[in-house]
Amino acid sequence: MTVTVPADVLSRLKAVLGEGGWSQDPDRLAPKLLEWRDRWFGTTPFLALPKTTAEVAAVVGICAESGTPITAQGGNTGLVGGQIPQGEILLSTERLRTIREVEPFDDVIVAEAGCTLAAVHEAALEHRRRFPLSLASEGTCTIGGTISTNAGGTAVLRYGTMRDLVLGIEAVLPNGEVWNGLKRLRKDNTGYDLKQLLIGAEGTLGVVTAASLKLFPLLVSRATAVAGVDDPQAAIRLLARAKDEAGGAVEAFELMGRRGVAFALKNIEGMRDPLAAVHPWYVLVEIASGEPGAAEAAMERLLARSLEDGLIRDAAIAQTEAQAKAFWAVRENQSPAQKPEGATWKHDVSVPVSRVADFLERATAAMEAFAPGCRVAAFGHVGDGNIHYDVLRPDGGEDAAHSARRDEGSRIVHDIVAELGGSISAEHGLGAMKTQDAERYKSAVELEALRAIRRALDPKRIMNPRVLF
Amino acid sequence: MTVTVPADVLSRLKAVLGEGGWSQDPDRLAPKLLEWRDRWFGTTPFLALPKTTAEVAAVVGICAESGTPITAQGGNTGLVGGQIPQGEILLSTERLRTIREVEPFDDVIVAEAGCTLAAVHEAALEHRRRFPLSLASEGTCTIGGTISTNAGGTAVLRYGTMRDLVLGIEAVLPNGEVWNGLKRLRKDNTGYDLKQLLIGAEGTLGVVTAASLKLFPLLVSRATAVAGVDDPQAAIRLLARAKDEAGGAVEAFELMGRRGVAFALKNIEGMRDPLAAVHPWYVLVEIASGEPGAAEAAMERLLARSLEDGLIRDAAIAQTEAQAKAFWAVRENQSPAQKPEGATWKHDVSVPVSRVADFLERATAAMEAFAPGCRVAAFGHVGDGNIHYDVLRPDGGEDAAHSARRDEGSRIVHDIVAELGGSISAEHGLGAMKTQDAERYKSAVELEALRAIRRALDPKRIMNPRVLF
Repeated sequence: MTVTVPADVLSRLKAVLGEGGWSQDPDRLAPKLLEWRDRWFGTTPFLALPKTTAEVAAVVGICAESGTPITAQGGNTGLVGGQIPQGEILLSTERLRTIREVEPFDDVIVAEAGCTLAAVHEAALEHRRRFPLSLASEGTCTIGGTISTNAGGTAVLRYGTMRDLVLGIEAVLPNGEVWNGLKRLRKDNTGYDLKQLLIGAEGTLGVVTAASLKLFPLLVSRATAVAGVDDPQAAIRLLARAKDEAGGAVEAFELMGRRGVAFALKNIEGMRDPLAAVHPWYVLVEIASGEPGAAEAAMERLLARSLEDGLIRDAAIAQTEAQAKAFWAVRENQSPAQKPEGATWKHDVSVPVSRVADFLERATAAMEAFAPGCRVAAFGHVGDGNIHYDVLRPDGGEDAAHSARRDEGSRIVHDIVAELGGSISAEHGLGAMKTQDAERYKSAVELEALRAIRRALDPKRIMNPRVLF
Repeated sequence: MTVTVPADVLSRLKAVLGEGGWSQDPDRLAPKLLEWRDRWFGTTPFLALPKTTAEVAAVVGICAESGTPITAQGGNTGLVGGQIPQGEILLSTERLRTIREVEPFDDVIVAEAGCTLAAVHEAALEHRRRFPLSLASEGTCTIGGTISTNAGGTAVLRYGTMRDLVLGIEAVLPNGEVWNGLKRLRKDNTGYDLKQLLIGAEGTLGVVTAASLKLFPLLVSRATAVAGVDDPQAAIRLLARAKDEAGGAVEAFELMGRRGVAFALKNIEGMRDPLAAVHPWYVLVEIASGEPGAAEAAMERLLARSLEDGLIRDAAIAQTEAQAKAFWAVRENQSPAQKPEGATWKHDVSVPVSRVADFLERATAAMEAFAPGCRVAAFGHVGDGNIHYDVLRPDGGEDAAHSARRDEGSRIVHDIVAELGGSISAEHGLGAMKTQDAERYKSAVELEALRAIRRALDPKRIMNPRVLF
């Protein structure tokens, strides 16, 4: 993409940002232009490093006035290319990293956009509170980014996604004006909820500069277990039973196929097979409660009953924190463990929970027909119907040949997802990668409405113009 | 308002709705044109009674094409005049009352807009599930209405408002097209969340025709108690302690001043004073858990500790379901019990939980200065910072004199709310009643953004044109 930002725009930007507030140094820019898996590489004429909301407003205001495209970036951990500029001005939130307040009576933390998720966890913990959203990239990803992509993670089953956890937002809108929506109210019915529109907007409706987030009590009772089951349908039945038995206290319910567990054992150091025998599918369950002993009791009831009637084949409850971590390590290494196995078509999809087994069966049959010998590794937050459905090249096959068929293969998977009333992007967003999929899988009625909203708020389409629809 | 709907529009509407699908009979229309407290009276040239989503689409399509204003109405229980047409076509959802599906594995119920909240509760219960949103008007209010006003109620502390409970929406947009957003996914990140925009839009962005709603497990352990405290600050401290002690299992935390309790005892038959002695403030706490005995244990720990260190003065735990109901009856009769006391300025406000005591002190001092002898009765969902703050005329004073000063008095209350970062409409919405308040209390930046969104989706402003901004 040709970069043509007029010189006077650049000098105005430099003037409002001041020394240390911008860069055009290729070495300084480089890490922000490369996606961490090396899949996306970008260009930008100018990196803005505002230190205050007012500076963000000044930058966006200049862009709005001059019609200069601009992309905001947080921790650069996105998976769909949304944060990598292709010629736009790049605005990094890295200097907006103040935790403005923690208010235990309100159960609220107010954090600037550039704060990492881990920093929010720590600040909450200092006040004996918990911010429950947790991600593999939490040491790097930022609050602005997790809001703009409506991040999920492992505790969505109980606490929801970022959409459920944001009480208020401060943002600079596409016209350069500051919207102070930094409320901390649990109830506020005074018109459309503008913050909900910004959540998951992938930076197209403004730059989030700060947010007030819900905090939760620390829970004293926690039980983690792994169970072996015959098939995904048994896992779904176990999920329903777990919800019943624990009454809303299920925090995580993760499914893993044996193939992925085997990849972890083979390719990642220090992994232990979670159960003595081999099972076709594994479930990782975590229950947590504020009542001493309650999570442990519920877990024991759940597993005893399910072993007795054969819904599960075997199970182990973690006896120590270290054992619980070991169980989670197998789950968290499902994706890294695939890397040495060669080229993979990855899918981040969701279907209604009741259709998970159906989806897995249909998709796998379709993949085996389309790419004989391919190796399907499926795992994910099955409690939310969210499956990371990965199709690896045949053992000993060629990476390039497999990669070349990715779009065609993914289309088949996504078509099945759509037929089952699912989503082709459960967690990661559309970004720049899935804009064409939006055309295919969203109705014309919805697309037109969403585009009308975007045009209304950003008539010159300056905010992250490459992404969404 | 002069009603001038062209005859050809009316005949087209009649044609698409068919026999039984519309009315112009004054007796049939009357109950839909009068708000239940007799505060709002409306007019309409035509009542549309569509039986299907397609008929709703046809009606809205004709209105869109001809630029005819239209207002949708559910159970007619709204408190801010939003549902009472002033000359528009009136579309009632009363014939859209099918429960389309209950899916226990998905924990989802799909209900049409005209289903009452009580019908949804019952259908869920038949599948041993719970829909947790509960309101005094639940036998009459509808799913479409509770979505369009983002209803709250007594369990918001744990389950959130309607905004948190809707998984998908089917709606007819202002252009007459059907948007099928009736998903049932816990995770879906594919652009702006259109359903969140429709929730709380008070019918201005389309007509909700059906929704998929989250269901929850039934909880086997439940404890209800009333405690007497010296002041609201003690109540707030008790709330923080309850959350800690019960680890997220607090379902309700309601505050009542003694004056309101005394009104209930005096004016409502069958009420019992909840505690032996008189206390300036009362808290009603409900804790519920899936773990047998856990709620009772947490409640006992909470009250024992709080009696011991003097945070509360006295407390009673309901020993039977009937006792729990008697406690709730005192709370639920706070508003009805005011009626015999004469004219009242009512306020449905919220502030950050940490500011509740501050708000009550400042507002009451201001009211006593502004209207000497007035009687403040405050109660509400203090766990959400939501206070129903009611200012009654002096004992023996004149209703008319008090009512005449309402706008001025309410302005003072709302100004204090705004200074404390609160909301002037926590639960009820803006409707037609608070459109000017929106001008005063919302920032110009936000108002302009919200209006731009409305213009983008409803360029002719046909949908409920009197309400919001």
